[in-house]
Amino acid sequence: MKHVSFNRPKFGHLTKMAVAASALMLQSSLAIAQEAQFAPLAEQFGPLNAQTGDRHTPQRVLPIPQTASEAAQALIAAPYSPYWNLAPTSDEEWIATVAASSEYGVQEATALREAHGITIEDATLGGVPVFILRPETVPEAHQNQVLINLHGGGYVFGPGRSGTSEATVMADIGGYEVIAVDYRMPPEAPFPAAVEDALAVYRDVLETHDPANVGIFGTSAGGGLTLSLVHKIKSEGLPVPGAIAPISPWSDLTETGDSYRTNEWIDNVLVSYDGYLGRAAALYADGHDLSDPLLSPINGDFDGFPPTTLTAGTRDLFLSNTARVHRGLRQEGIAAELHIFEGLSHAQHIFDWSMPETRELYREITAFFDVHLSD
Amino acid sequence: MKHVSFNRPKFGHLTKMAVAASALMLQSSLAIAQEAQFAPLAEQFGPLNAQTGDRHTPQRVLPIPQTASEAAQALIAAPYSPYWNLAPTSDEEWIATVAASSEYGVQEATALREAHGITIEDATLGGVPVFILRPETVPEAHQNQVLINLHGGGYVFGPGRSGTSEATVMADIGGYEVIAVDYRMPPEAPFPAAVEDALAVYRDVLETHDPANVGIFGTSAGGGLTLSLVHKIKSEGLPVPGAIAPISPWSDLTETGDSYRTNEWIDNVLVSYDGYLGRAAALYADGHDLSDPLLSPINGDFDGFPPTTLTAGTRDLFLSNTARVHRGLRQEGIAAELHIFEGLSHAQHIFDWSMPETRELYREITAFFDVHLSD
Repeated sequence: MKHVSFNRPKFGHLTKMAVAASALMLQSSLAIAQEAQFAPLAEQFGPLNAQTGDRHTPQRVLPIPQTASEAAQALIAAPYSPYWNLAPTSDEEWIATVAASSEYGVQEATALREAHGITIEDATLGGVPVFILRPETVPEAHQNQVLINLHGGGYVFGPGRSGTSEATVMADIGGYEVIAVDYRMPPEAPFPAAVEDALAVYRDVLETHDPANVGIFGTSAGGGLTLSLVHKIKSEGLPVPGAIAPISPWSDLTETGDSYRTNEWIDNVLVSYDGYLGRAAALYADGHDLSDPLLSPINGDFDGFPPTTLTAGTRDLFLSNTARVHRGLRQEGIAAELHIFEGLSHAQHIFDWSMPETRELYREITAFFDVHLSD
Repeated sequence: MKHVSFNRPKFGHLTKMAVAASALMLQSSLAIAQEAQFAPLAEQFGPLNAQTGDRHTPQRVLPIPQTASEAAQALIAAPYSPYWNLAPTSDEEWIATVAASSEYGVQEATALREAHGITIEDATLGGVPVFILRPETVPEAHQNQVLINLHGGGYVFGPGRSGTSEATVMADIGGYEVIAVDYRMPPEAPFPAAVEDALAVYRDVLETHDPANVGIFGTSAGGGLTLSLVHKIKSEGLPVPGAIAPISPWSDLTETGDSYRTNEWIDNVLVSYDGYLGRAAALYADGHDLSDPLLSPINGDFDGFPPTTLTAGTRDLFLSNTARVHRGLRQEGIAAELHIFEGLSHAQHIFDWSMPETRELYREITAFFDVHLSD
């Protein structure tokens, strides 16, 4: 048999064509595969779901929704968060993990400040360390207003300046003075230290501001803490702030609420309560009952709450944590808004501060505060 | 071997105890099973989702959320809708299926009218048959107002009086005169007949009402048709109504939007686009491009839309259809609200008109109309 040799590079264009063609074939074969898969799945899961009880769903491949922005699509397509199944076995391991993550957080916050001309001031309010973020110019209507930001991170991540990115972005997009609270966290200071610190800062802010001029906001644990703080403010007999904006709030620290299960394995940030999340809940609660309204503010009384704007995503493990708070507020007649972003998992806006959805979110909060805060 | 006989009834109480015990064991074994399943699932789906791309989710068993009302839990636990994978192969089969379903619809609507003292009047507006539903008393503030209801049913179900239940419930809960439009449907009258009929009724209503006094609402196809009608009203140069309330609207007739996939097999009403739903879309569109803004109103221009309140559920196949419209409206600066009900699948409120969530939903719409309609 004759040996045939050829010059590979000569066929480069054919290789490219073949790659392009196989990409096209892959796309169309995915569509065909979905069609072809439907009948056997219907045959199996139709009967499984033909009786009363739990819902049975097949193993699935979920495509990236083209209905989100390109930047959001990149986040939706991203691998599971490297932290999702984190399982530190000692306080030292928690501390080391948080420290490693904080290095990046500090860099990010610094870059955001520099890019947007935001200044940072170290201060102490009510004995609690805070950072005051200020934009170059504050619109007339916001000059008597101040926002308090409670950072996210499962009550574990985000100490010091590593927790100031969201406050920086809000100072920029909304044009506000924002106080970022460096509340104490476990393992050193578990619940109720965070609530106490947030309260102490709020109490101090009331010395210099009308509560109607104060807005409080935060994402994830920061959103849950915002809600817990309002419960605490009410129980202390203090006036509530003018408005609040919990974003995908961790309103229930137990695995209670529909989307803890419906969006399990779909949400690529938290993935599952049984991963890092449940461990962070236990670390923070430190033996307290997880259903305590200051830990799981969904269990508190929403009567007397200020106007509230809430945000989550369709793939968000905290979709129910968010929607349930909205319904609870509405049942008490509170002015409350809900915004759901297409395709986004839990708190995914904080992973790309320039994403259109992120900017839209903080503009919505600004519009809401413009209606509900006094100026 | 000795034959042992016994009197079965004597052991009846033991059987009951055994059943009760095994139910308890089942509950606790489910919790243990979930815990035990996590590690192997994490081992399999962690790596599968450790690269950029589509999301891979395991086969799952989703429990009934205890965070919904008891009545809602019963609906969430219900088997897949018997219609979910309906595949009529001829016009005659579609007609026969709709006729069978309509019998129950007429009975339900009649019972609702009798229970709540709602009267029904057959009428014709703009040449289109309608039913006018009136409660015994209309509050002062609603006496100059009128609501137009566009019934749901995938543009196929709900002809005649079988499509009047939602209008009846709204007349009762809100205290309104409600005009239920008996718009034409396929196979006899596909798109754009429904839009034309809805427009003709609206045009006629404008002869007797200020548009600021008119609200339009509907569920599912009725919600989509509400949105398509506003696009049509704008293109005709007519004034838009004072406010609209699309509930879980079928805003995209193509399988576009995240929850078409994330809530596939979870939603127990629609279950999948590849079931009855996609077939109804094709039947209605009758060869027209499904992405036409009058078929898929998400693709239209929301500038100039009236204030809009939207509703969906966390398990809703149309969660994205609803949230995407909300975002589209907000991006145009339209006053728009979104309400998400815990655990509910598509349009599940219409399956239990006395469910707390159902009553809350129509009270929310009434509150929204009270703010945005003129009186």
